[in-house]
Amino acid sequence: MTSALPTLGERAREAARVVATLPAAARDEALLLAADALHRRCDEVLDANARDLERAALADTPAAIVDRLRLTADRVAAMAAGLTTVAGLADPVGEVVRGWRRPNGLDIRQVRVPLGVVGIIYEGRPNVTSDAAGLCLKSGNAALLRGSSTAITSNQAIAGVLRDAYVKAGVPADALVLVDDTSRESAVEFMRLDGCIDVLIPRGGRSLIDAVRENATVPYIIDGDGNCHVYVDAAADLDMAVAIVVNGKTSRPSVCNATESLVVHAAIADRFLPMLVPALDGVELRGDARARAAVGGAMTAADADDFSTEYLDLVLSVAVVDDLDAAIAHIARHGSGHTEAVVTTDLRVAERFSAEVDAAAVVINASTRFTDGEEYGFGAEIGISTQKLHARGPMGLRELTTTKYVVTGTGQVR
Amino acid sequence: MTSALPTLGERAREAARVVATLPAAARDEALLLAADALHRRCDEVLDANARDLERAALADTPAAIVDRLRLTADRVAAMAAGLTTVAGLADPVGEVVRGWRRPNGLDIRQVRVPLGVVGIIYEGRPNVTSDAAGLCLKSGNAALLRGSSTAITSNQAIAGVLRDAYVKAGVPADALVLVDDTSRESAVEFMRLDGCIDVLIPRGGRSLIDAVRENATVPYIIDGDGNCHVYVDAAADLDMAVAIVVNGKTSRPSVCNATESLVVHAAIADRFLPMLVPALDGVELRGDARARAAVGGAMTAADADDFSTEYLDLVLSVAVVDDLDAAIAHIARHGSGHTEAVVTTDLRVAERFSAEVDAAAVVINASTRFTDGEEYGFGAEIGISTQKLHARGPMGLRELTTTKYVVTGTGQVR
Repeated sequence: MTSALPTLGERAREAARVVATLPAAARDEALLLAADALHRRCDEVLDANARDLERAALADTPAAIVDRLRLTADRVAAMAAGLTTVAGLADPVGEVVRGWRRPNGLDIRQVRVPLGVVGIIYEGRPNVTSDAAGLCLKSGNAALLRGSSTAITSNQAIAGVLRDAYVKAGVPADALVLVDDTSRESAVEFMRLDGCIDVLIPRGGRSLIDAVRENATVPYIIDGDGNCHVYVDAAADLDMAVAIVVNGKTSRPSVCNATESLVVHAAIADRFLPMLVPALDGVELRGDARARAAVGGAMTAADADDFSTEYLDLVLSVAVVDDLDAAIAHIARHGSGHTEAVVTTDLRVAERFSAEVDAAAVVINASTRFTDGEEYGFGAEIGISTQKLHARGPMGLRELTTTKYVVTGTGQVR
Repeated sequence: MTSALPTLGERAREAARVVATLPAAARDEALLLAADALHRRCDEVLDANARDLERAALADTPAAIVDRLRLTADRVAAMAAGLTTVAGLADPVGEVVRGWRRPNGLDIRQVRVPLGVVGIIYEGRPNVTSDAAGLCLKSGNAALLRGSSTAITSNQAIAGVLRDAYVKAGVPADALVLVDDTSRESAVEFMRLDGCIDVLIPRGGRSLIDAVRENATVPYIIDGDGNCHVYVDAAADLDMAVAIVVNGKTSRPSVCNATESLVVHAAIADRFLPMLVPALDGVELRGDARARAAVGGAMTAADADDFSTEYLDLVLSVAVVDDLDAAIAHIARHGSGHTEAVVTTDLRVAERFSAEVDAAAVVINASTRFTDGEEYGFGAEIGISTQKLHARGPMGLRELTTTKYVVTGTGQVR
């Protein structure tokens, strides 16, 4: 059987050419109409979702996956609200990033433009269909979406609602193309649509990320793991440190900006850890020998893997180090380059930590949980990049654009 | 046999940690000492080069490759001058790209930082060893370099000179690590040094680029082909158009920003092409039927491939189109996204061309040859990106950096 994917990709590419030059008002109008339509056609979406849920039940799908798959009227309303919010954000397209005149009179401007076709491969959650499509359209891109087989009926319903609304606003329906074929072969083919997909953003777990690294020939951005540390310095405000660790670990343990590992300066370990343990009631602590000694054994022993593990659960590894150098070395060895925090009142420590720790975000005297597009004020987020090219840290609308140079002359040659 | 590559990579990574926080003065001093040393030790470099040339002669290496391989005292002096120039450029590291305060009092700054380890795979020219290492050090990175087997003795000599100079300036020698193993297996292994190479920049022909796309698991930037067009509009200044096409095609035909294809509005084809043909004496013109008709046959017939070919030679394809839409469509079909120029006096045409043509650079009333780091005023260039992520167009020092977010609070939690 011939794959439909190249044809779908070409449709998205054609739409991208149109969307790239639409005025912001048309893109915003499409998003607002789409939000309206999600409200009006909510039952249709829920019916489609019910069919996915039935299939999931027959397949004995684990409860956590079913929960991610399940839509409710509230969840559909949240998708609509998301589109409305995105419509209200500032347009990233057309910004002159910088511009200058050369001695020969050439005017050079670097202008922000859409990427073109943004490909997204994602897992269970059907709301990603709406969220990702909205961010792509707002930033002047076409979205080529490939969700999971479990959510295909829901995704088709949501995509249908959005595409209808787009057309009413004069935006090509193919600004959102959903790939129906959810086979494994199609995923690999998707990652190799050179010349069609301008950037691939995988949204999913480690096995999806590994498959992208191994197979993709199109450019991609990795939304990676967060093995986030808090380093409590000798000069820390210890009450502040307790609050920051408790918030980082317990406010939402399943997300990538949760605190996974605590590093404590030896000089205050004996005071700080006994303060922390009762505040982390319900959290399993796994410490090295010195951490355990500081709390008289109220901690299990960390094994070799603990310090490199992103638990995504109510578990925290704890290491005691001799000084800032050892803390930075520990983080360099075990960190994933997502978010690393320090709690200190010592300016020199704050400066060295922020300069020497290599991560998308370094946080001084605040929770690791702030690494997030909303918390940064981006209004929306397509993911958090842990790679260094193109985008690093929370990715908003700006990160869904590229630039082009516009060079204006009066007949110059060289 | 165990590969030495992971160990070499780890050495570069360790050096990158140190280089990233060195003051600019130390990096500049190392570059200036390296330039001095290239002058002083020129004979050593030329002796090493002579051994490569001997091997090349024994292997019946083509003359063009031997020419790229050959060093002279002038070429070594040019490498030294390049390092001196780079030392004098502004430091890209430490720039606060943007910064703001959130309602909760968090201060967020996006700060420019080095990438870390820049991996470069390159072909014949030994001067790349010095040029690339210099740009990497200036931008606070370590360079992990893998040249070709033909140039290995020259590359080792140059790397040795630079590494000695680095140490005298207090910069780790391993800020330049040259890979000795130039086997094909080692190239593939190089492209898969995850966790060690932060960005891979291949410098070479199509087969190298294809190998990177197919094998690389580390992030990379493609320095791609340039099938650059000039579109001569109905409202063009035809004398200016002749000058721009002649310059674009003939000033240096072998480079990626050379003009490869001419697109002419039908309304002026009969006037313009007869003006152009004598000015392009010595250039083979391959035209479509209307182009040939306009010059009474002083042009060979373009076949199906001509419009997609980057000749890198004194050959130019010529198409006549009905209007701007057709010109934009032609360029979208055949262009490589490098540089596309328009010659026009019509503001609306200039605006539509620059908005609708999807390329790293669009040029209005000037030669395509201006897409170049030096011509843009970057002072130096590591390549020209034809991809859309991270860097698009000429890449200078700034494009060899990434950013990190530094978030400063007073105990905030969420």
